[in-house]
Amino acid sequence: MSDPFVIVGGDAAGMSAASKAKREDPDREVIVLERGEWVSYGACGLPYYVKGEIDDLEDLVAIPAERFREERDIDLRTGHEVTAIDPEARTVTVSPTDGEPYQESYDDLLIATGARALDPPIEGRDHEGVFSLQTMDAGREIRAFVESTDDLDSVAVVGGGYVGIEMAEAFDAHDLDVSLFEMREHVLPPFGPSVGDRVAAELRDNGVTVHTDTRVERIAGDDRVTGIETEDETHDADAVLLAAGVEPRTELASEAGIEIGPTGAIATDADGHTSHDGIYAAGDCTEATHTVTGDPAHVPLALTANRAGRAIGSTVGGDPIPVGEIAGTAVLKAFDLAAGRTGVIDEERAREAGFDPASVTITAPSRAHYYPGGDDIEITLLGDRESGRVLGASMVGTEGVAKRLDTVATALHEDLTAQELSYLDLSYAPPFSPTWDPVLTAGKVLASTLE
Amino acid sequence: MSDPFVIVGGDAAGMSAASKAKREDPDREVIVLERGEWVSYGACGLPYYVKGEIDDLEDLVAIPAERFREERDIDLRTGHEVTAIDPEARTVTVSPTDGEPYQESYDDLLIATGARALDPPIEGRDHEGVFSLQTMDAGREIRAFVESTDDLDSVAVVGGGYVGIEMAEAFDAHDLDVSLFEMREHVLPPFGPSVGDRVAAELRDNGVTVHTDTRVERIAGDDRVTGIETEDETHDADAVLLAAGVEPRTELASEAGIEIGPTGAIATDADGHTSHDGIYAAGDCTEATHTVTGDPAHVPLALTANRAGRAIGSTVGGDPIPVGEIAGTAVLKAFDLAAGRTGVIDEERAREAGFDPASVTITAPSRAHYYPGGDDIEITLLGDRESGRVLGASMVGTEGVAKRLDTVATALHEDLTAQELSYLDLSYAPPFSPTWDPVLTAGKVLASTLE
Repeated sequence: MSDPFVIVGGDAAGMSAASKAKREDPDREVIVLERGEWVSYGACGLPYYVKGEIDDLEDLVAIPAERFREERDIDLRTGHEVTAIDPEARTVTVSPTDGEPYQESYDDLLIATGARALDPPIEGRDHEGVFSLQTMDAGREIRAFVESTDDLDSVAVVGGGYVGIEMAEAFDAHDLDVSLFEMREHVLPPFGPSVGDRVAAELRDNGVTVHTDTRVERIAGDDRVTGIETEDETHDADAVLLAAGVEPRTELASEAGIEIGPTGAIATDADGHTSHDGIYAAGDCTEATHTVTGDPAHVPLALTANRAGRAIGSTVGGDPIPVGEIAGTAVLKAFDLAAGRTGVIDEERAREAGFDPASVTITAPSRAHYYPGGDDIEITLLGDRESGRVLGASMVGTEGVAKRLDTVATALHEDLTAQELSYLDLSYAPPFSPTWDPVLTAGKVLASTLE
Repeated sequence: MSDPFVIVGGDAAGMSAASKAKREDPDREVIVLERGEWVSYGACGLPYYVKGEIDDLEDLVAIPAERFREERDIDLRTGHEVTAIDPEARTVTVSPTDGEPYQESYDDLLIATGARALDPPIEGRDHEGVFSLQTMDAGREIRAFVESTDDLDSVAVVGGGYVGIEMAEAFDAHDLDVSLFEMREHVLPPFGPSVGDRVAAELRDNGVTVHTDTRVERIAGDDRVTGIETEDETHDADAVLLAAGVEPRTELASEAGIEIGPTGAIATDADGHTSHDGIYAAGDCTEATHTVTGDPAHVPLALTANRAGRAIGSTVGGDPIPVGEIAGTAVLKAFDLAAGRTGVIDEERAREAGFDPASVTITAPSRAHYYPGGDDIEITLLGDRESGRVLGASMVGTEGVAKRLDTVATALHEDLTAQELSYLDLSYAPPFSPTWDPVLTAGKVLASTLE
């Protein structure tokens, strides 16, 4: 019998790989080494837990550790940190919370170490009342703080990405005065300016103060936080959430000599293989191939991690599956609004990738013009003049945004032209769409612009 | 200057063609001959007009006749019936409601004569209180009848297709006892049995009596309808809606010697050309190529008509666009439920088309498992064992069904395998989807079934 399949990290990518490998090859020994206590959890649900829409932190766990151990026969070791990889000896050094370090041999190894919240070098970040939404325990701590601190009136959120926006809504639900600070010109930079501005307007309509183009210089306070200092002003704040983005955890890999890619995440091939024989990487620590540009991209999102983990588990288990390309498809809810993006939507980025881009923005109703309810959807489509291809889309609206993105994501996967996109046979009934779905309308307008 | 582009029929296909031809070639003379008075109307909205959700019948009109005439410079002649085509002389015979018949020359001709409601040979169909939802005027008549008939208690709907189901909901909204009769084993035959059964259950939950496998033999009554007679029973009914489906209006074409295809609708090529030079056909009177089977199919739906009309208008105007293939994508609302289908979902039909089919049915939540609200979506996917291709899908649920169909419709257009479908980078956020969207989950399960 071969040496085990060893997995470093027990969240989405790691546990997907473990489960799939066991299904494909039940006799194979699968060991998961997770330094924390939580496994297979939906960190994406943390803002809704803090908001209070989800009662129990355990509800975010997709599958409890016992079930992996008992039902799936996976040797899942929580409280076991991997501190080194020796690719020559095919061993990892394991440091248990309770116990002596030891070596574990592997035949195949998966690095699924995830990402960490960026720790911006802001003075005062150690004050009491400053948080980041790094972990499940951090989520619990923030909710407890919000629910138990009597004199809590105001919260400052530093960073206008997904987490910042979702957490602004979460804090707002606790009747706190929420201010959000984004250093770039608009919130949600990867979604483009028109979606960013629309989301900022939605936040403001719901009472959140939004500061764009504003760099936070210092967190004021002595022991406990009292405010946020920007270049020009000081804003009161009884608590601060740092949500400046994430970076891949690559130290373990790079110290073992495993190649790091141009994005700063671990480089992998189409099968999730790293530069070293028998060593795979998946999830937020890893690059993936962008389906539009063909270049490596680092988009640390849940589906990418789940897909790649599952594919590597299948490959290791004897049924090779590629990890799949990514389109950078993302969507988020901001109060009543949904905002999403897929592919390449930035013209400069498209030019860098060798395209000759042109974009159109249309507004179309989510239902037939005569059918009550519904709302306008704004769609921006980017295309390539030379090939006629669709390169990406952003969308924003209160109804039917998230799954309309999927049509474009599928089209991107297949290199559809704007004309082809506009002639797809999409679903229509008055309560769900105009006859020409907004995606088709956007495709028509883009096709004539690219001509 | 060439002879005009003449269009027979002023609804979706005809007016789309007229508008697009004028945009492409503003100097071209475009004549639309419409025998009725309504043009460019959304017949799909009629059930919601009868229901009372839409106040005014005129609201269903996308663009009023005057705007076509004044803003788009289209010679739109309502009340002008075309009674014959002479392909040799390139003329049509026009019979105006007020005036003498005359000949009109054409250089290009578009036949967009639509479909008519099937007139089942049921005794008693001429009784007062028996309707079909053939036209805008019929919609007005039904609503007036429902709103003004004092002793109206019960309505029988004959036919469990889209129109029958949407009209059952419409009558129910007027507090009528509604019975629906479908002669086949389940309602919505093209949606498959599991969706049909689910829709029937939804109708029953809302107080509609549903009879499947039941043939209506006779409509009882003397002058006015009093009931429905089936093989075994008589059911009281103060009104009857006949909704037994539609058939293409092909007489004008077939009398001119234009080829009728295997489905009974007018045969056309990829550009919408009929068997005769300079004569096009589009919309409900026409076949189209099915994207999965490659065979001609007759799916009389609004988007197909709009797309083909627009493409032919563009082609005639000098910028050729193919009319596009169809996947038979369809969706409908039945009370709180949405039900949809795309592609080939019937195993026997798939075998006839040369596939070796297998199907899977999954149930998955429309949102993350921990996120409140949402509902299960049931998806049935059909695939081909030999190629691994996805052949079709049906879906049913209360949330997020319609636009999830579009992902599969797009995949069908590009001949995606189940494995490829399952690894698309689709949108995910807890309020909108589980990490693996139900479509991806269905793809995964189908992929392993096809292996």
